[in-house]
Amino acid sequence: MDNSENNLPTGFRFAGVTCGLKASGKSDLALIVTDHPVTAAGVYTKNQIVAAPVMLSRSRTPSSTIRAVVTNSGNANACTGDQGMTDAQTMCREVAERVGCHPEDVLVMSTGVIGRPLPMDKLIVGIEQAAKEIAGDTPAFVRAAEAIRTTDAARKTVTREIEIGGKKIKFAAMAKGAGMIAPNMATMLAVMMTDATLSADSIKAVLTESADRSFNRVSVDGHTSTNDTFLLLASGQGEPLAGDELAQFQSHINEVSIALAKQLVEDGEGAVHTMAIRIRGAADVAAAETIAKTVAASPLVKTAITGGDPNWGRIVSAAGYADAKIDPTKTSLKICETEIYRGGTPVPFDAKTLSQKMLAQKEVPIELVVGEGPGEAEYWSSDLTCDYVRFNSEYTT
Amino acid sequence: MDNSENNLPTGFRFAGVTCGLKASGKSDLALIVTDHPVTAAGVYTKNQIVAAPVMLSRSRTPSSTIRAVVTNSGNANACTGDQGMTDAQTMCREVAERVGCHPEDVLVMSTGVIGRPLPMDKLIVGIEQAAKEIAGDTPAFVRAAEAIRTTDAARKTVTREIEIGGKKIKFAAMAKGAGMIAPNMATMLAVMMTDATLSADSIKAVLTESADRSFNRVSVDGHTSTNDTFLLLASGQGEPLAGDELAQFQSHINEVSIALAKQLVEDGEGAVHTMAIRIRGAADVAAAETIAKTVAASPLVKTAITGGDPNWGRIVSAAGYADAKIDPTKTSLKICETEIYRGGTPVPFDAKTLSQKMLAQKEVPIELVVGEGPGEAEYWSSDLTCDYVRFNSEYTT
Repeated sequence: MDNSENNLPTGFRFAGVTCGLKASGKSDLALIVTDHPVTAAGVYTKNQIVAAPVMLSRSRTPSSTIRAVVTNSGNANACTGDQGMTDAQTMCREVAERVGCHPEDVLVMSTGVIGRPLPMDKLIVGIEQAAKEIAGDTPAFVRAAEAIRTTDAARKTVTREIEIGGKKIKFAAMAKGAGMIAPNMATMLAVMMTDATLSADSIKAVLTESADRSFNRVSVDGHTSTNDTFLLLASGQGEPLAGDELAQFQSHINEVSIALAKQLVEDGEGAVHTMAIRIRGAADVAAAETIAKTVAASPLVKTAITGGDPNWGRIVSAAGYADAKIDPTKTSLKICETEIYRGGTPVPFDAKTLSQKMLAQKEVPIELVVGEGPGEAEYWSSDLTCDYVRFNSEYTT
Repeated sequence: MDNSENNLPTGFRFAGVTCGLKASGKSDLALIVTDHPVTAAGVYTKNQIVAAPVMLSRSRTPSSTIRAVVTNSGNANACTGDQGMTDAQTMCREVAERVGCHPEDVLVMSTGVIGRPLPMDKLIVGIEQAAKEIAGDTPAFVRAAEAIRTTDAARKTVTREIEIGGKKIKFAAMAKGAGMIAPNMATMLAVMMTDATLSADSIKAVLTESADRSFNRVSVDGHTSTNDTFLLLASGQGEPLAGDELAQFQSHINEVSIALAKQLVEDGEGAVHTMAIRIRGAADVAAAETIAKTVAASPLVKTAITGGDPNWGRIVSAAGYADAKIDPTKTSLKICETEIYRGGTPVPFDAKTLSQKMLAQKEVPIELVVGEGPGEAEYWSSDLTCDYVRFNSEYTT
């Protein structure tokens, strides 16, 4: 994985500025502008309570004429009624004027406090400044990635270069915040950019598969926010990828998305360890996902990981109450590659050694076989620590 | 609510003894014996990993010839393979010999550590002793309720006397442990006894409705155990309750079950506060239950209750990702009877006063209207505290 941020796809320019939305004074407005209209797709939160920027961007994708993405942090513009929609539209219009495009070709994302109107005077000044500073180099990309952070402990980016059919293709992606991780904060946001050529017909399917394999398989606290957005922008021109080349591209973009999604889990609130839960032997992929998600969300499994406790009872019984069929007599479990449960029966193991191994590893691998079916899925989740509880409870409005 | 434990239904005798299953030396074996064959029903865990005693009792209910229920704590007899089933059968046979009935007329429950064989020598001695000490008075009832505890901070009992059609009817019920609340511990167990007359045809339906309104509407950590069992024994003889009288009985047993279930939540691991979540305006009862359960399980809602934070954003957005339809424009929320969100828009309120109110109350009432449908449901859940995390993570095998 090349994560040096030095390998940006052509056709994109970036800015990240401070317009005063955050009490901390940190940067809070990111702008991505494309050199020419690009194909774009989005996947959005499935929450029924949807923030205005999500409604607006959702109505504009997929598209083959996108020119910009504007993102603010510090305010989610969610549960803000008609004013929220007007403000999201104003943000796009302000960007469009400076970029020289239609407002409909601008996408918008917001993240931060729910239920407060955006301070539009500050935002308009910020957009003006960002439009002036826009640049195609790595420092500008980093500034944009910084400006979308909320309580993230680190900025989250992935860049990668691949080759398909003799052509070099580059990816650059940024993301922030896993789940509703902070008091009243909403949102996981991610933008993936590539200079591959994708047709407007195929881009949505490519993004959806990639999201299903990555961001839809991570969990910090299982709380789906009102603002979740994952955008894909493809700046390539000419013949779009198709057939085997498109399949190769899909495989690469899945990997890049997973790398980005795993950064969210690693930076999950209060997280010390993460777990990678691999389910095998389920009836199909959907069943494997359901089981993986159920294990990942169990507070008893999460706290077992926190404590380095190779507690097969918690993991196996969590799989048992998942809404997907398992075969208890063919259920087997490995933690950190040590088999501790086989065919429905505990296997003797050195608990102390395994516990030390679990505590020494940042990511604890859990392999659970639930039958003899072909369904497999991998899922990533953080542990549950006192810091999570403290951060989310020691707060008074 | 009469909870004096002095009001026992006729026809039942009790014992609670210590046979050495617990390191603590506390009592660990409870026996309930009926004076004559009684009608009985059970509802059991929906986990696919099911302990041997659950399989055995499940195969024996509903019944109109039950004579005894034997329960041990300290060992769940779960994930113990064929030996586990043999041991559960032996427990019933030992009881049957002493009571003078068929082994098939004995029900069995176990709770405690998963994955370890029962020490049958100890259990057999315990059963012998319990059979000798059996008595119909309140101290014996209390000893039985004590002996089914695991990590419960207090024993959980409810007794009540009602009148239906001029006849007095008594209830006595005992329960233990909400969810999988302790390291490797499994199980919520409850037994409800009444001297009402119920037909073998109606008793299962009565119990199921009562469970759906009570134990199926409480959550500590959402982790369904391998051993959950709720039994109803009705000792009355003569004409069974029917028609309006049966409906009255149903309403009373629902109340008694809810009172018992709420004790589980109040004693949820690490719980300081509980919440009573009332959903109104859903499409139907099932939708209301789904929304209530989703709100109750959200770690962000739970930690908001811990911190006394009237955080409507967390509650409303949790409802928004429930797998049941809500109408965001008709969503309204009250916490401790203070309206803070109406028709999709925040309502100004005195956050400090409301926060103090939330912290001062043991049970925080949350009333969420999600539309204009007829569906209503109430659900009870504990908060999420550092003590929960500590207890479940500061443990090494």
